[in-house]
Amino acid sequence: MLIGAIDAGGTKILAAVMTETGEVLARCQDSVRTQTPDVPAYFTRCAEMLAGCAREAGTRVEDLRGAGMNIPGMVTADGQVLGSPSSRWGAFDARALLASQPGFENLPLFFENDVNACALAERRFGGAGDDFLWITVSTGIGGAVVADGRVIRGAGGCAGEFGHIVVERENPLPCGCGGMGCLEAQAAGPAIKKRAAAAGLGAETDAKRCAELAWQGNALATKIYEETGVWLGRALAVYANLLNPASVYIGGGVSGALDLMLPAIRRTLTAEAIPQCRGMRVERTRLGYEAALMGAAAVCLDGLGLNSSAHNTLVFEPIIRMESAHEI
Amino acid sequence: MLIGAIDAGGTKILAAVMTETGEVLARCQDSVRTQTPDVPAYFTRCAEMLAGCAREAGTRVEDLRGAGMNIPGMVTADGQVLGSPSSRWGAFDARALLASQPGFENLPLFFENDVNACALAERRFGGAGDDFLWITVSTGIGGAVVADGRVIRGAGGCAGEFGHIVVERENPLPCGCGGMGCLEAQAAGPAIKKRAAAAGLGAETDAKRCAELAWQGNALATKIYEETGVWLGRALAVYANLLNPASVYIGGGVSGALDLMLPAIRRTLTAEAIPQCRGMRVERTRLGYEAALMGAAAVCLDGLGLNSSAHNTLVFEPIIRMESAHEI
Repeated sequence: MLIGAIDAGGTKILAAVMTETGEVLARCQDSVRTQTPDVPAYFTRCAEMLAGCAREAGTRVEDLRGAGMNIPGMVTADGQVLGSPSSRWGAFDARALLASQPGFENLPLFFENDVNACALAERRFGGAGDDFLWITVSTGIGGAVVADGRVIRGAGGCAGEFGHIVVERENPLPCGCGGMGCLEAQAAGPAIKKRAAAAGLGAETDAKRCAELAWQGNALATKIYEETGVWLGRALAVYANLLNPASVYIGGGVSGALDLMLPAIRRTLTAEAIPQCRGMRVERTRLGYEAALMGAAAVCLDGLGLNSSAHNTLVFEPIIRMESAHEI
Repeated sequence: MLIGAIDAGGTKILAAVMTETGEVLARCQDSVRTQTPDVPAYFTRCAEMLAGCAREAGTRVEDLRGAGMNIPGMVTADGQVLGSPSSRWGAFDARALLASQPGFENLPLFFENDVNACALAERRFGGAGDDFLWITVSTGIGGAVVADGRVIRGAGGCAGEFGHIVVERENPLPCGCGGMGCLEAQAAGPAIKKRAAAAGLGAETDAKRCAELAWQGNALATKIYEETGVWLGRALAVYANLLNPASVYIGGGVSGALDLMLPAIRRTLTAEAIPQCRGMRVERTRLGYEAALMGAAAVCLDGLGLNSSAHNTLVFEPIIRMESAHEI
């Protein structure tokens, strides 16, 4: 049984044809941005790419069992995009756009927010269990809350806004949301770059370079990641107290520097979470660099009602690869 | 159909016999503390009280459909108490203690943590919907998270520790949990009393008296409740961003002064929750003073599998009654 997966990332499209255990038979990538004036053309390109993968895998799109697609914004299970601030998308019918492509007419299609999809993949392919948080620390910070084995969506479908927990009140940085001292404003990739420049590490030092400097022993760069760990720890402590999860999985480019942040994260958890909740595991995602693509596959498999229990002991070898935080 | 409800509160036992719509046919109260060296005698007293209510309602315990009981601590659905710090209870089998009482041998018994029980009652009897937080602001601060219609328990059964979210870092007060600046340390009844004394309102001014002073226009007392509202607002903003609920229901003695705190709560929500999440309603519980007793009834009805949908439009008239925060 083969399925299709499409990840509509901010700066690139990834498509793949996979088996139900997550084995990738064919994949392709194109550096198309979601921030495009021609959304229908964007979906046509997604469809072409998946059709190409199907051919490469020796099949046709219409012979796949179904396809899953991630949207970098709010989307209903039946493909109604409610909006995507990062892509400057308003509301539209993603299902209709994809289903109008050749070969897609009768294909079961499933849609999901990209971070939620990562969480579903961590559960299906990474053995994440029933109670965990998935966060991405990249250009922004997003989260997906899984409790009792289900993604929590909230009354308005906006749950998981982990990046906008206020973690700094004394010297808060302004956030894109209009708030001050949000985790995203303090700890995401651009904030690390900004703080690196302010610390005298040069305007070109982005999150990736700052991590390299820290690994080489640079004290300023080390301190920047320690502070980042404190802020992450404060937000994680709140989450631990509220939902008492077993684990947190961190994806996104900045997660490549988790080792630089983990001591501060754990110290802060000890100080700010109650004893019963502070033992939560904090790990890098087990899905590697293409977590979101695996997410689109999980969305499809979940949508088809295929039980994950047979597969959730399959743990991917993490691909330890640190990308520039601005690219992921 | 009649059911039994037992609320094992910190300073008193409440028992009642009710109909399935929550109508109380008989109730009784006894000022027995959970903090007792003789736990079996405590459960015998609970059983005697429920038997008395049954007689008053013209029936017998053995003819009830079942009984629900709240525990002020961690308890499994089948009555294994894991511990109650406030009662200094260790682990024991509450079901076995209750089931050994005359008439209780074959009675279906259901157990739940007291705050979770309040949330279940708010859903069944108060029309609370599927996504909300229930918090009690009293001697301590506890919470129950309901998402997608279910109480979230977390991997270790400790979810909902709303009182230990850190809300103050500049001048934090020490908390019983060992942390600093937890919501409970800043905003619970004893904290209000402590801050009232520090503000010059006198050592005898407890949370209730402080509210009365504020209602009479005392500026110092007003400021104390405004600050309390800011801290509550900070914790609620985190909750709103993480779980995007429709509502928060506040119970416990201090909730009687919600009007004094609400402007600061809303102001803080606007500043610290993202636009999509900050619209969350903040209300006093609709269950009145005996929320936990209604909770024990809801636990029994849920345990018996009796659907609440027929009843959840029944909204109780709130009993607006401000008790000393130290008694509830």
